[in-house]
Amino acid sequence: MTDHPAGADLAAELEESQARHLRTLADFDNYRRRTGREISAATAAERDRVVLAWLPVLDHLELALAHADADPDSLVDGVRGVRQLALDALRISGVARLDDETGPFDPARHEVGAVVDSASTPQPPPAGTVVEVLRPGVEAGGRVLRPASVAVSAGPRTAT
Amino acid sequence: MTDHPAGADLAAELEESQARHLRTLADFDNYRRRTGREISAATAAERDRVVLAWLPVLDHLELALAHADADPDSLVDGVRGVRQLALDALRISGVARLDDETGPFDPARHEVGAVVDSASTPQPPPAGTVVEVLRPGVEAGGRVLRPASVAVSAGPRTAT
Repeated sequence: MTDHPAGADLAAELEESQARHLRTLADFDNYRRRTGREISAATAAERDRVVLAWLPVLDHLELALAHADADPDSLVDGVRGVRQLALDALRISGVARLDDETGPFDPARHEVGAVVDSASTPQPPPAGTVVEVLRPGVEAGGRVLRPASVAVSAGPRTAT
Repeated sequence: MTDHPAGADLAAELEESQARHLRTLADFDNYRRRTGREISAATAAERDRVVLAWLPVLDHLELALAHADADPDSLVDGVRGVRQLALDALRISGVARLDDETGPFDPARHEVGAVVDSASTPQPPPAGTVVEVLRPGVEAGGRVLRPASVAVSAGPRTAT
């Protein structure tokens, strides 16, 4: 201790505070650098995961084709199996299929693939009702990655 | 910073140093929180990208199957087209196929799917030579995600 205890204490405390600040800045800097690497690594890991989920689809497509030469009838069964693998891959990827859409057309989930004139049906649905999914869409985490292409009703024919 | 009114100066400087430290800690904390979200977002974006690359495979599998009922002969052509889509998807995903492996067996890239007795061949390759790729592997960024399953030569038959 010195003859100016308060000053000396404060000086020591200041020095320590500055040293702590420098350590935090260094930690922050390291963290920033590590983060860049972590994002790259997480992205690559996710790519690997999704690709590996889909890889059996390609494998079995090729097996189905290889067998098709010897036994053409086997191809339909083989391809049905591959379709199931692709549906599994979609599920494993963490993505949901929009393949069961009904009700009113929703531009956030649907795109119009066809307009169906249901005038011949006794009770045609109101105009703009989804009557068929032509090509399923996909959504993940509440976001629509690709809207479903749907056929919508033209509605009851008005007298012309 | 030795004797005099230093006490007051030091106290002010200490206060300021501590405030700066607190601001850095708050910045760091915000950055950490943002980073978690950024990693999630980057991972989801990569999943979406790879899934969208593969989605045409499923679409066209289903189209090929739908047409197969009407025209069974069309299925082989359809499935060949789907295979090409799957190869495209692999490329778009940023992954390379190990489908052209030759030379000595390499445990880092290969797994033994079969051992081929090439005794009948006039000049059989040395034991442990890759003679056929049974199921291609994949690699990305220099890492093997899945080794290629290969047939290796049993080598020249030794007199028994």
